[in-house]
Amino acid sequence: MNNYSYISHLECPKCGEIYKGDHIYQLCKCGSPLLVRYDLEKVKENVSREEIANRTNSLWRYHELLPIQQQKNVVTLGEGMTPFEKLPSLGAEFGLNHLYIKDEGVIPTGSFKTRGASVGISKAKELGVKHLAMPTNGNAGAAWALYAAKADIKATIVMPLDAPQITRKEVYIAGGNLHLIDGLISDAGKVVSSLVQNYGVYDASTLKEPYRIEGKKTMGYEIVEQFGWKVPDVILYPTGGGVGIIGIYKALLELQQLGWIEDKKLPRLVAVQAEGCAPIVEAWNKGEIESKFFENSTTCAFGINVPKAIGDFLVLKGIYDTEGCAIAISEEEILRTQKLIASLEGNFVCPEGAATFAAARILHEQGWIDANEHVVCLNTGSGLKYPETVVIEGVETIKPGQEILLNI
Amino acid sequence: MNNYSYISHLECPKCGEIYKGDHIYQLCKCGSPLLVRYDLEKVKENVSREEIANRTNSLWRYHELLPIQQQKNVVTLGEGMTPFEKLPSLGAEFGLNHLYIKDEGVIPTGSFKTRGASVGISKAKELGVKHLAMPTNGNAGAAWALYAAKADIKATIVMPLDAPQITRKEVYIAGGNLHLIDGLISDAGKVVSSLVQNYGVYDASTLKEPYRIEGKKTMGYEIVEQFGWKVPDVILYPTGGGVGIIGIYKALLELQQLGWIEDKKLPRLVAVQAEGCAPIVEAWNKGEIESKFFENSTTCAFGINVPKAIGDFLVLKGIYDTEGCAIAISEEEILRTQKLIASLEGNFVCPEGAATFAAARILHEQGWIDANEHVVCLNTGSGLKYPETVVIEGVETIKPGQEILLNI
Repeated sequence: MNNYSYISHLECPKCGEIYKGDHIYQLCKCGSPLLVRYDLEKVKENVSREEIANRTNSLWRYHELLPIQQQKNVVTLGEGMTPFEKLPSLGAEFGLNHLYIKDEGVIPTGSFKTRGASVGISKAKELGVKHLAMPTNGNAGAAWALYAAKADIKATIVMPLDAPQITRKEVYIAGGNLHLIDGLISDAGKVVSSLVQNYGVYDASTLKEPYRIEGKKTMGYEIVEQFGWKVPDVILYPTGGGVGIIGIYKALLELQQLGWIEDKKLPRLVAVQAEGCAPIVEAWNKGEIESKFFENSTTCAFGINVPKAIGDFLVLKGIYDTEGCAIAISEEEILRTQKLIASLEGNFVCPEGAATFAAARILHEQGWIDANEHVVCLNTGSGLKYPETVVIEGVETIKPGQEILLNI
Repeated sequence: MNNYSYISHLECPKCGEIYKGDHIYQLCKCGSPLLVRYDLEKVKENVSREEIANRTNSLWRYHELLPIQQQKNVVTLGEGMTPFEKLPSLGAEFGLNHLYIKDEGVIPTGSFKTRGASVGISKAKELGVKHLAMPTNGNAGAAWALYAAKADIKATIVMPLDAPQITRKEVYIAGGNLHLIDGLISDAGKVVSSLVQNYGVYDASTLKEPYRIEGKKTMGYEIVEQFGWKVPDVILYPTGGGVGIIGIYKALLELQQLGWIEDKKLPRLVAVQAEGCAPIVEAWNKGEIESKFFENSTTCAFGINVPKAIGDFLVLKGIYDTEGCAIAISEEEILRTQKLIASLEGNFVCPEGAATFAAARILHEQGWIDANEHVVCLNTGSGLKYPETVVIEGVETIKPGQEILLNI
């Protein structure tokens, strides 16, 4: 073992089965996703928070806590350490005195999916993968196709016709093997399963390889580091496949074990969904530990249009364990909030991100979030990828030489 | 004077006139843009490179060398310290052993214009500006409208109808006063001039306020810092209004004066233009010190469709002084190179950025760049803002349940 990574093994969170970290594994024999475990005692002995603070300005600053064993296998476009900023004007509007954005729009490929792609592709390269396949709601496929291109791995991407248009162009320009499907991500998932069975390609579907989550957990590390190695009171996350929230929860537990955060109480994790696709919210409302397939799902926040997530039980566990909650937001509220954020704070967020801010406002109004709590909303991507969410009205075109009248 | 900024005064690079740094000035009486000067001796005494290395991960780490006097006036979305990465595969393809990208797509609002907007708007706020107006080829207007929204400054933005569609949506969602014009940026400039005259609004046109360039020069600081406080041999920049290249040149001279770079020889600066709009290239070819209006200009790299830049003489001076050059790239070559970069390195660059890589290849083939020189190409924005540059061909839509055949 070198000390670039302190990966120890893979573990099934359902049945407890253990697997080695240097072979290709997908799901556990029992059907559950696998989680990566590290020798945290060794990390504690060999790495300090101060050392990390002086390192490269990307998620690779946490390399001991990532699964790549040889640095030469790292596939990077400089991703991570995204902005973490206080939003005083929006906070005042909402009655929240300590409202923050973690802005995952400011990252290569323009969405948080990049983290999973960078770590997932790096590990795939290390494991000798030559061809992978994945279903996607757009952003993940775009990120994986671009990183796969850099790693010289073939990528077959199956994407709903309704996914954001720009994401299919990202796959295409990367030279990915792009397929559009007239259906949902669950339909795309079935196509990919059959490719995996028929051709033996690597299954890069959400949580069917154990490494994507390791990339996404770095959002949790960064929030804590950027917050001065403390934890906020509440973290709100837009939840589709749920890997983001699972990853952040995993990161917080690891940081506790490392003694890098002193807080005994973890942030309350909030899964934010759209009213048009709210399987986790329905399960949470009923106190259940798994979700049911959400029929006829639809939302402009396309990234969270996931009717049944394979990791739903892990998302729900994270919420219950931290005394968090789940909440669904209407389409109208998502778009209204997106505009409010841009006009008050200058952040052009994606609709999924806008939903978390709407949720913060509503939960404060309901008394679930106190005015003085420290609240972090995850914006998972750039509004640039969702041009259709902005409809311009009342703007006229002028001719050269024509004058404008100002109302001042 | 506090020590957040060591700004000293404004200076005219043409006639030498001096102005104070704490009043609103636009152009010099002689018609030239003004440049900001600092007390570099005091900076040298009070700040070290090591201190800067430990600071915030944004362009504000260089605050002593920026014109904002009170930190409370800083308007930030976490911009700067963008990725600087070696591109080994593309380098091998081109025969260049040390090819680097400075990736300005990974920044709030998705283009390098954000740097100018952050510093320009911060200073406008400090100077008490309430309403500004600017002509734009899209990205600058988008950035200024979003930062103006955050600073609670009204922004009137005049943009050609042909500018990237997403940029008008950014202005709109920010609540900016958007006007589209059926013409070029030069036509938009005339409209803005008349607004400035009729209403006394602040003129935020390129180089008509002295602070935008201060934001953009930070690209120069970052390249040097990320390169280990050394300078590369060649920097290639896509050149429209030219503020980027002027800013980088200014930054290099300041770093030399500070003694923060030991190299006596500065990088050769290359202005890259499109064949459809190449006024600087024409002037350089003739050895002239100013450019002529380029008639009927057109290019898909819309950001560099500037037929006559007000700072052309400063761009040309930067090129001559550093023994650089100017080169024009065809539309076909721009788009071919954009695809090549994505498929080899995973970077989805904008067409303006792609042009600089094409230029590096051609200049190497011509013997102007040696295979072992360290070459930095500036990608000025994200490909996400230019969806029309990617035309998808040969992708069929499948139905749920339909199988895919792989050729492996």
